Amino acid sequence: MTATHEEIEGFMKVALDEAAKAEAIGEVPIGAVVVYNGQVIGRGHNMREHTQDGTHHAEMMAIREACMVRHSWRLEDCDLYVTLEPCPMCAGAMINSRVRICYWGAPDPKAGAAGTLVNLLTDSRFNHQVGSVGGIFQAESSAMLTRFFRGIRAKQKAAKASGN
Amino acid sequence: MTATHEEIEGFMKVALDEAAKAEAIGEVPIGAVVVYNGQVIGRGHNMREHTQDGTHHAEMMAIREACMVRHSWRLEDCDLYVTLEPCPMCAGAMINSRVRICYWGAPDPKAGAAGTLVNLLTDSRFNHQVGSVGGIFQAESSAMLTRFFRGIRAKQKAAKASGN
Repeated sequence: MTATHEEIEGFMKVALDEAAKAEAIGEVPIGAVVVYNGQVIGRGHNMREHTQDGTHHAEMMAIREACMVRHSWRLEDCDLYVTLEPCPMCAGAMINSRVRICYWGAPDPKAGAAGTLVNLLTDSRFNHQVGSVGGIFQAESSAMLTRFFRGIRAKQKAAKASGN
Repeated sequence: MTATHEEIEGFMKVALDEAAKAEAIGEVPIGAVVVYNGQVIGRGHNMREHTQDGTHHAEMMAIREACMVRHSWRLEDCDLYVTLEPCPMCAGAMINSRVRICYWGAPDPKAGAAGTLVNLLTDSRFNHQVGSVGGIFQAESSAMLTRFFRGIRAKQKAAKASGN
């Protein structure tokens, strides 16, 4: 069952809400959800700084929660929505857990593994291919990230000016 | 500080011990350790079937434990030893957590991301490169995997013959 345009936008809005949760606690604003049968069964937002765990990306959390909910590592009928193009770790996790389609927001020029730097999701040499649909609410996702990094640079500048 | 030949073999033996733990409980025998300053600070073995979590690979567990021990997502002075060539998820996790060198055992023709299918570890377009040294105790690692899959096929054959 393929999602409608309205469903895709609706679930990406939930992923953007997850990204906002990360932003609110000073984490890079990236959010993700896993959807099964029209229901969100996994959510996550970037928590790397709070947990000091290098694997704590939004997609990983959403996948792990979805596996728990389904009592299965096979998420074959599940789609994943994430506000930023997945990195190799998260794209690999989607291949490993047999995610059906990954809908993603803004491209990531630094680590994008859904076509920008490499394209792991649809590489036919792996034992599973994940459908890849990019650019969903790209402007909203990019704006949130730009605002976040601008804020960090402003803080760094202020700290430098005050001699700290 | 680069590891000596003896140290490399010694730590890969610990990773093989981890793989044996997986084999003992019916999981695909893959093991990994993270080493800092000559000490094992993270261990893991494949637990995908027991946990039904698609992200539960040996390397991920070893990395997560090492992050906890060091209270940091940055494992810059740490090396990772794994009995099978890492998949894209695990290679990506090593890039994300800034692992220094990955020593790996047998190549993986189905998912190898350290040169066999793709080479993520040393790709200069990512913001960190992980040194990659393959083939450490390759025969031992391969033999363990071959024995495991032969056992599974024998069980399947026996079940078929008995009509189950």
